[in-house]
Amino acid sequence: MDEGLSTRDKLVTVAARLFRQKGYHGTGIAEVLAQAGVPKGSLYHHFPNGKEDLAQAAAEWTAAMLVRVVEDAFTPAVEFRAGATTFCHKLAKLFDLSDSADSCPIQALIFDGPDGAAFRAQAATLFDRLIGAVARQGERLGLEADAAREAAETLLIAVEGGWTLARARRSSDVLRSIPARLYG
Amino acid sequence: MDEGLSTRDKLVTVAARLFRQKGYHGTGIAEVLAQAGVPKGSLYHHFPNGKEDLAQAAAEWTAAMLVRVVEDAFTPAVEFRAGATTFCHKLAKLFDLSDSADSCPIQALIFDGPDGAAFRAQAATLFDRLIGAVARQGERLGLEADAAREAAETLLIAVEGGWTLARARRSSDVLRSIPARLYG
Repeated sequence: MDEGLSTRDKLVTVAARLFRQKGYHGTGIAEVLAQAGVPKGSLYHHFPNGKEDLAQAAAEWTAAMLVRVVEDAFTPAVEFRAGATTFCHKLAKLFDLSDSADSCPIQALIFDGPDGAAFRAQAATLFDRLIGAVARQGERLGLEADAAREAAETLLIAVEGGWTLARARRSSDVLRSIPARLYG
Repeated sequence: MDEGLSTRDKLVTVAARLFRQKGYHGTGIAEVLAQAGVPKGSLYHHFPNGKEDLAQAAAEWTAAMLVRVVEDAFTPAVEFRAGATTFCHKLAKLFDLSDSADSCPIQALIFDGPDGAAFRAQAATLFDRLIGAVARQGERLGLEADAAREAAETLLIAVEGGWTLARARRSSDVLRSIPARLYG
């Protein structure tokens, strides 16, 4: 645990990792508290609805992290394909750093999460935020707005599906193969 | 519950649906038994390791169902693109018939399943069975073996990712958009 993190950030990052590894229903609050080294009172101070609020915060945190990966990948690129290729390679590295049995950081939090319409709506918003980040980069790199949006959606769809197959095979090669699949 | 089903099939189909709706960890054995109308003894007769065995059987059942969807979609097709397009439309219909919050039939059983290497290995096998079914159809439709395999993998990756985005948006439109994304 990074001692420089605030209590809230400790809770969110530990929860995000556990949800990824064990799913929302498979993760117990006691385990989050133990691994974060945080007393129960602090959890309810920061997250009055407990696990459900924590899931929402962890989903936000994960989406923000993935937007940063998009920015880092595309900023040095001079064409969309190059940015997309770097993005896929960065995700492959992320996959290799996590246990390959882990869920995709997005899927874990969005789908095996709390029931309820609010959480589902948040899921769609976070996905669109990520697609929007890629689309903005596409426009910067010269694509028309519609084309940039299409290219961004297709890339995110392929990356989500690629992570799933990578998990099944326990190999990040699938993620690295995506640019060749999409752009020939 | 279809009364014509065997006890084993009742257990497997009910479990497959519940795992899809609530995840593996979120599904209780008591709920499976109640909805299948089957006594506890029968469960352990057919599935000595209980929920874990049931998850394995449900994953097998789901993969077999999806292979049938592949066959139905591709058999009348005269080129790969047409078969792939029908396949995506059939999956969109499947999505519309299920609660749109449900997990992809494959992902639900493969990833939010029991921990352990055996189940993970089965996941990879089932994915490859599905990819193999599409690849055989590709070869029948004139693709070289390598190209058929590539086309099959790309289609399955896009369909997995498409299901994920469709869930977030609660709309099967993403699944119908996949052929245009992949084949222009």
